[in-house]
Amino acid sequence: MPDKNLRIRRAGPDEPRRRPVMIAIAGDSAAGKTTLTRGLVDALGPQRCVSLCTDDYHRYDRAERRDLPFTALHPDCNYLEIMEQHLQLLATGSPILKPVYDHATGELVRPELVEPAPIVIVEGLFPLHSRLSRACFDVTVFLDPPEEIRRGWKIARDTGKRGYSTEAVLAELDRREAESAAFIRPQRATADLVVRFAPIETRDDPADTPLSATVMLRPTIDHPDLTGVLQPGLTRAMHLKLERDPDGRPVESLHVHGYVPREESIAVEKAIWASLDAPDTDTPDCLGRVGDGRSEPLAIAQLLLLYHLMDLDRGRP
Amino acid sequence: MPDKNLRIRRAGPDEPRRRPVMIAIAGDSAAGKTTLTRGLVDALGPQRCVSLCTDDYHRYDRAERRDLPFTALHPDCNYLEIMEQHLQLLATGSPILKPVYDHATGELVRPELVEPAPIVIVEGLFPLHSRLSRACFDVTVFLDPPEEIRRGWKIARDTGKRGYSTEAVLAELDRREAESAAFIRPQRATADLVVRFAPIETRDDPADTPLSATVMLRPTIDHPDLTGVLQPGLTRAMHLKLERDPDGRPVESLHVHGYVPREESIAVEKAIWASLDAPDTDTPDCLGRVGDGRSEPLAIAQLLLLYHLMDLDRGRP
Repeated sequence: MPDKNLRIRRAGPDEPRRRPVMIAIAGDSAAGKTTLTRGLVDALGPQRCVSLCTDDYHRYDRAERRDLPFTALHPDCNYLEIMEQHLQLLATGSPILKPVYDHATGELVRPELVEPAPIVIVEGLFPLHSRLSRACFDVTVFLDPPEEIRRGWKIARDTGKRGYSTEAVLAELDRREAESAAFIRPQRATADLVVRFAPIETRDDPADTPLSATVMLRPTIDHPDLTGVLQPGLTRAMHLKLERDPDGRPVESLHVHGYVPREESIAVEKAIWASLDAPDTDTPDCLGRVGDGRSEPLAIAQLLLLYHLMDLDRGRP
Repeated sequence: MPDKNLRIRRAGPDEPRRRPVMIAIAGDSAAGKTTLTRGLVDALGPQRCVSLCTDDYHRYDRAERRDLPFTALHPDCNYLEIMEQHLQLLATGSPILKPVYDHATGELVRPELVEPAPIVIVEGLFPLHSRLSRACFDVTVFLDPPEEIRRGWKIARDTGKRGYSTEAVLAELDRREAESAAFIRPQRATADLVVRFAPIETRDDPADTPLSATVMLRPTIDHPDLTGVLQPGLTRAMHLKLERDPDGRPVESLHVHGYVPREESIAVEKAIWASLDAPDTDTPDCLGRVGDGRSEPLAIAQLLLLYHLMDLDRGRP
């Protein structure tokens, strides 16, 4: 019935919809996706940006998952085909009625309307899972903390906010390990940026030193020219290095040090922010927030992503 | 970003999906949509057919609707853009994650996956609301009982199954009247078939006589050739008449009489069923069911719709 296809197209809107800039922030559970995303969302504001989490595409609620032979990290535990469909709709400027998974209760509840803003941020376990889902994004990020750091973050969050015991979280982490290796970590290889927050192993910094960030910039997209930012006086806070990815591919690696005095990091932030034409104000306060504290390496990573998003948003036809 | 559009298309499936035959059954609340639909669904079976109700696209739950200046019959009270989007997806063979409105509790609950079967039946208040939604269907039906009959049905159902009092239903009917006239009844003019169950006004049949059916067949689609069915011995049960629609357009009008002895109606049913090549069995028992009772005019109306659906399903490339 190709006649029906044509009828549908002829009955559709005359004007093509404005397509948003889309960024994926993928990574394992408690890898820091929501923390990274929150700063971007707050800096861009609701007029300019909308965010969503692909955990909402869970096929089963918490009670149903107890009897399943796989965890939430398995593709079969999620409506990935619907996630892909919704990403395509958003990428072409259409609204979606998004399912909603309530992390506090573990229940699937009434869906909600999401209208694409100029910038759409999609965080979750699976946004880079398939060729089709990846094709929906303009920038892709994978969060890659060392496992022992991620486990600590997961225990803190799931016992604090989601009502689990430490033993339950540890057991769940073990249960998920094989599926994490099979389905989540492979997405790392497809990301334009891989962000890793970790202490610097070769240094013996005190325990309260903020984590440093390593941002791997793959030459799969154009990255901002940081030569103007990396002035001689600022290289203690941040420097670039040509390296090889663990899989052997050449990458640019941006090292942002958590141990330098805060003023030096803030000077780097100001330099990046100033290089974005748009803003006439100071670096947004919301960047770098971690719980009640601050991380300058996080703020710098967020600024790099903002740079990409604002640049793509401006550059549209 | 037309390059992204192309990337998405290139990443999609190689094989086009099989497009289902789609039928819309539209009409006001308690016009008999679910009763008509149930017989079709049962006769076709779950392998061949899936049905859905567009009431699920309510934007507000029952409690929220109490404070609104309009009723569920107003387009603004429904996610009609999402309904159109989902109809397009189904019409092109894609699954949807459909919202769910629970009529028993008046709540919006977790959505459910609907995969298109070869035949998709869509009943509800709004399936023929827009040019775009209409373009998704191969056959469109509007149920048009006289208002006093529909009011009786609505009172019986809403007090029996949905926990309302008679006074509440009557008040709601009044509240809805203007929106029914503005948004629901205009869909009648666009339907390929208009089905009306009513007593025959010119006769003085006893009160327990089954309602007769008038099925208006608009020449907007090809209807089955009923000349083989309308044998001389059967014209008491059913006959065709050239008439004018209330809006003046010429239509074929099929009159199915509720007062004739049941055997005569059943002979008509058998003749229609036999004219469908596919079936090797008797006329399905599930046709004509109304609550615990039976209506032969309903069975005949359902057979006509089955004729269309099976014919279109067979006729696909």
